[in-house]
Formats: sequence, structure tokens, C-alpha cells
Amino acid sequence: MYKDTNIRSLVKGFSWRLVATTTTIIIVYIFFGRLDLAIAAGALEWVAKITLYWAHERAWFKIRWGRKKIEPFNLWLTGLPLSGKTTIADAVYQELQKLDIPLERIDSKDIRELIPNIGFTRQERNAHMHRIGHLIKTLQNNSVSTVASFVSPYRESRKAIREMVKNNVVVYVKADLQTCQERDYKGVYEKALRGELENFSGINDVYEEPQHAEIIIESDTVSVEEAVKIIVKFIEKNYVK
Amino acid sequence: MYKDTNIRSLVKGFSWRLVATTTTIIIVYIFFGRLDLAIAAGALEWVAKITLYWAHERAWFKIRWGRKKIEPFNLWLTGLPLSGKTTIADAVYQELQKLDIPLERIDSKDIRELIPNIGFTRQERNAHMHRIGHLIKTLQNNSVSTVASFVSPYRESRKAIREMVKNNVVVYVKADLQTCQERDYKGVYEKALRGELENFSGINDVYEEPQHAEIIIESDTVSVEEAVKIIVKFIEKNYVK
Repeated sequence: MYKDTNIRSLVKGFSWRLVATTTTIIIVYIFFGRLDLAIAAGALEWVAKITLYWAHERAWFKIRWGRKKIEPFNLWLTGLPLSGKTTIADAVYQELQKLDIPLERIDSKDIRELIPNIGFTRQERNAHMHRIGHLIKTLQNNSVSTVASFVSPYRESRKAIREMVKNNVVVYVKADLQTCQERDYKGVYEKALRGELENFSGINDVYEEPQHAEIIIESDTVSVEEAVKIIVKFIEKNYVK
Repeated sequence: MYKDTNIRSLVKGFSWRLVATTTTIIIVYIFFGRLDLAIAAGALEWVAKITLYWAHERAWFKIRWGRKKIEPFNLWLTGLPLSGKTTIADAVYQELQKLDIPLERIDSKDIRELIPNIGFTRQERNAHMHRIGHLIKTLQNNSVSTVASFVSPYRESRKAIREMVKNNVVVYVKADLQTCQERDYKGVYEKALRGELENFSGINDVYEEPQHAEIIIESDTVSVEEAVKIIVKFIEKNYVK
């Protein structure tokens, strides 16, 4: 959040004076046909009004009326491990920062310091999602929008998030299980297939596809740049006017 | 966070015009001594400048220069159970909201939904405090100030908070152990004395008094209203100018 500094009000006053006094000189000249008097009147006006303008500016700075609270949104990227959620979310976050709105990136990695992930069973995952929902709600209460990326494989936890937060935008990052496995640079699919990872979405636990996603990105065929464009366009159209 | 609506810019333009055109009419009258022409010039000026002013206002709305990011602070109230932390923090929060800054209240009760409190041993308490520090940091990154009230009995965890967050203001709510016990409407001291509560600060666990508190409130003798005044004055002087 920002506030107007005193120097900003002063410089803004100066820039307005240039526009306004020039107009006054022209008007007085039209009426009286005497350029010398028109300029003298303009000079007097300049001195009187630069102070008045500044005072007017500071007074309005204290008036709350006509200031609209910015509506926060939550972008929620869901999809299989290695479907491309994090890459897309990072790029979207970077692009949205240009809009100069309060914005926070939330990722399973970043969240670990804040909310301990107790486990990966269905119940534990749901409890974890509920806590993340609370975090987003807390941020939204302060006009902060969020870009969140989580596997979030269960419909019920995504539904809980939707009910907790405002302006929820689900982005389903859709990729073939096979594609994700081929991308397995972390070696997590391999581990899961060997049975070393329990409750791994797509292998030994379900991933329930979203049925009401606002945006679907087929990451097999859509590039990261294109995905960013689609998502940012949606946000600009619906939430940042 | 707020943004200026279009209607605000228009009404602001109208209010400025009243001030400015009156000044113009007076100036023209002084120079030419003809009230009829002065009013006619004023009328022309009114029409021309009300549009110019609006355009100028919207243009400046897009200029970032001279907008200062609001510096967030963290008020951290520490003290024995029932020393009066929560009561004072609630009242301070209410008063600070009038300053029209992004502000969040953080309390052990509120935090439970967000961060599971795993236990009350020294190590578990410290880990919990660390997570709360991360929450405050996340909020501060988005210009949100915080009013936090926690027993926070250990020096090391208070120090960790101080190192993690910006503009940390420790308020030590100081009350005699005896006073707190007499206020024991929750019956927690009684329980702790009967040995039913473990690691209860002041009874069977230490409360390490802060040595670098910015503010000390002796809640035995200082009223809630006075405490609020002291704390709000400190914040206004140091962080909200």
C-alpha cells in the first residue's frame, strides 16, 4: 500500500499550474485583447493558486470518499506432480506484479516454514488445505491477492478453499500422467512407483480432476508464455479494472 | 488498499473549480475593474478547466512517483497469562484501525485455525513462534501491520521474532503473578497449581521478562484506556506520519 508524499502533491500542483495559468492568460487575452495585462493577471493567479492547490490536494488526501477498496483474488493452480503448476504460477506471479497490486505467491515449498505439513493422507491433506485457506483469507482481508500452486488432488479440499476465499479462480494444469512421468527430473514418480512414496497423487493415490475450473491449461500443448497470457487476461478482465 | 474512483476525481475537480474560478474572477476584477467581464471570463475558465483538471487528475493517478510505500510495524504484546495482553491488544487494534492502514490482529486463539499448536514444551513453543514470525513477515511484505498478543515466555523466541520482522515493538504487559492469579476467571492458574496443566508460564515453567521492551505497561496500575493511549502515541510518532 502506498501513500502520497508531500513532494508529490507539490509537483503535481506545479504541473497543474502550467496547464491552468496558460489557459487563464489565453482567456483574459481573448476578453481584453491586452497581452501585458493578461500575463500580469496570470502571474498573480500563479502565486495565489499554487498554494491553494496544494492545500486542496492535502485536504482531499484525508477524505476517504470515492476510494474503492481493491478486490483481492485467489489464483489456485491444481494438477498432477510435474504437470507444470509451479513454473506457470511463478511466471504468472511475475507478470501480475507489473499491475502494482498487493500480491503474494503461495507454494507448497514456501508454505513449509509457515504451516507444518503433517502428512499426506486424505485427512491430513484436507486439514493442510484448510489452513492454507485461512492464510489466503487473512491476506485477502488486507486486499492482498494470491497465486497459489498445490497438487490439491481432492475435490472436497478445493471446494473448501472456494468456500473460504473470495474471487477464487481455479486453474487446472492438465497433463497426461505419462507426460508428467517423462518429465520426472526430480525422480519422484520413480520413487512412488517403487513404493517408496506413499499417497503419491496419480500413482498410489487418486487425483480427482476439477469439474468447475475457471481456466484449463493443457500443458502438453500450451507453452508457458501462452498460459501466462490466458491467465493474466482473465484476471485483468475480471478483477483489475 | 484503495484506489481512486473516477467519480472521486470528478467531484474533486468540481471542488477545486469553486476555489479556483472565484480566485480568477477576483483577479480579473482587480486588473480591469469590470465585474461583468470578470464573471464571463470566470465562466469560460470554468468550462475549459473542469475537463482539463479531470484529465490531469487521471494522468497523475497513473504516475507512481512520489507515492511512498507504507512501512508496516509489528506490535508484540508479551506477558503472563491473564496479565491483560488480549484486552489491551484488542483495544489498541480498534483504535489503530481509525488510521486507515492495513492492519491484522494476531492472537493465540485466532492463530489456531492457521497454524496448529503442536505443544507447550520450550522447543515446540519456539517452533510455533517461528511460524508466527513467518506469518507476520508475509503480511509485512504486503504492507500489512500487525497487533500480536502471545504469552511468548522465552527470550530466544521473542528475539527470533525481532530478527524476522520489521519495526518490531515489544510491549511488555507487566502484572504481578499474584494479580494474575486473582484475576483467574478462566481457572487456568488453579488448574496449573493442581498440576493439571504442564509448562504453564509463571507456575511450572519460567516467564523470562523482556529486557529490551519498547513499551512497558504496568497493568496493575495503568488502565486499558491509558495503555491504548501510550501504545497508539508511540506508533503514530514512529511509524504513521
